[in-house]
Amino acid sequence: MNIGILGTGVVGRAIATRLVELGHSVALGTRDAANPIAQEWLATVGTFRGARVGTFAEAAGHAALVVNATAGAASIAALRLAGDRNLHGKVLVDIANPLDFSHGMPPSLSVVNTDSLAEQIQRSFPDAKVVKTLNTVNVNVMVHPERLPEDTTIFVAGDDAEAKATVADLLRAFGWRSIIDVGGIETARGLEMYLPLWVSLMSAQGTPAFNIKVVRS
Amino acid sequence: MNIGILGTGVVGRAIATRLVELGHSVALGTRDAANPIAQEWLATVGTFRGARVGTFAEAAGHAALVVNATAGAASIAALRLAGDRNLHGKVLVDIANPLDFSHGMPPSLSVVNTDSLAEQIQRSFPDAKVVKTLNTVNVNVMVHPERLPEDTTIFVAGDDAEAKATVADLLRAFGWRSIIDVGGIETARGLEMYLPLWVSLMSAQGTPAFNIKVVRS
Repeated sequence: MNIGILGTGVVGRAIATRLVELGHSVALGTRDAANPIAQEWLATVGTFRGARVGTFAEAAGHAALVVNATAGAASIAALRLAGDRNLHGKVLVDIANPLDFSHGMPPSLSVVNTDSLAEQIQRSFPDAKVVKTLNTVNVNVMVHPERLPEDTTIFVAGDDAEAKATVADLLRAFGWRSIIDVGGIETARGLEMYLPLWVSLMSAQGTPAFNIKVVRS
Repeated sequence: MNIGILGTGVVGRAIATRLVELGHSVALGTRDAANPIAQEWLATVGTFRGARVGTFAEAAGHAALVVNATAGAASIAALRLAGDRNLHGKVLVDIANPLDFSHGMPPSLSVVNTDSLAEQIQRSFPDAKVVKTLNTVNVNVMVHPERLPEDTTIFVAGDDAEAKATVADLLRAFGWRSIIDVGGIETARGLEMYLPLWVSLMSAQGTPAFNIKVVRS
């Protein structure tokens, strides 16, 4: 699949690399295509596999599926740079968290309770099919869930069933075996509001290499 | 131990019954001691085991450990009726959630993000030792975690290490094997903000009989 990844941070690069390994044609989008981090990523994965680097708009325009891996506070602006036209009708996977460190630790959320970043994105780009996922785990767990000692759970939220099915296929390719569809895009609130607990668990356990497994009777 | 349970709802009665079964001397506190639900509870468990029913103040006055099992929106008022003097120096286990259904489903929270109900309670009753726990599971899972097919995780948050150790002992008596101390009382924010995800998971799975297990590498 042609996939555009917006954001060259640790998360964006890890997902881009994993997707290249899985045989997808990946464009890593950045504010400035001369960005040395993006160029270094490209040198690492090798262009022969169809990987490329471009602006946010180029990466989104290239893609059937776009991943928002930018910081939560910068996501709407980055998606505007990608352009409404380049997101039209596409699956838009939102893995960002609207973390706000201005009140100190633990971080609070800049959108919360009766709204979520995913809903803001869906409202801002009504012709995109937004699917919230992967925001509840650390980057290494995201792309290699099998490195944890047992299967854990990942969630998808969004209004478009077909888009969620496409994303679930990608998640299975990453190694996820337990995928729970929590509901419409409004259920992204719960996925984002889980973050403060995640941060506490990281501190309490001294590692970000963990996840939760939903166990039901 | 002498334990006072504030609140005669499903949760308060279930915890009170379980504590009676475990041999504790339990006072179930209610706004009005003639409350027929409380009297029916008393008839069910039998007074010979030291169980009793009383006002919030009587139940708290009787106890070394007090459990807030009132609705989140009514908790501070109920604790004021219990009385600052009757909570002084005591372990105050807060299992309430500040759910707000006024915006429809999924429920939002009336306190959130940079504050929590548990912190409000701790600030209102600075001489009590508030421990947040059990708010992340349904009533049946709370008192019988072994009914789930595998061990899952329960959390404690609070500023007093000794109070958390006392509460962990009670949790172990309930059957909990995996107890994570997430930190000071401010980490109750994460425990309360988990609720919207819990509600989505209940809807998605069609049952409240589930919990999460923290799996780390």
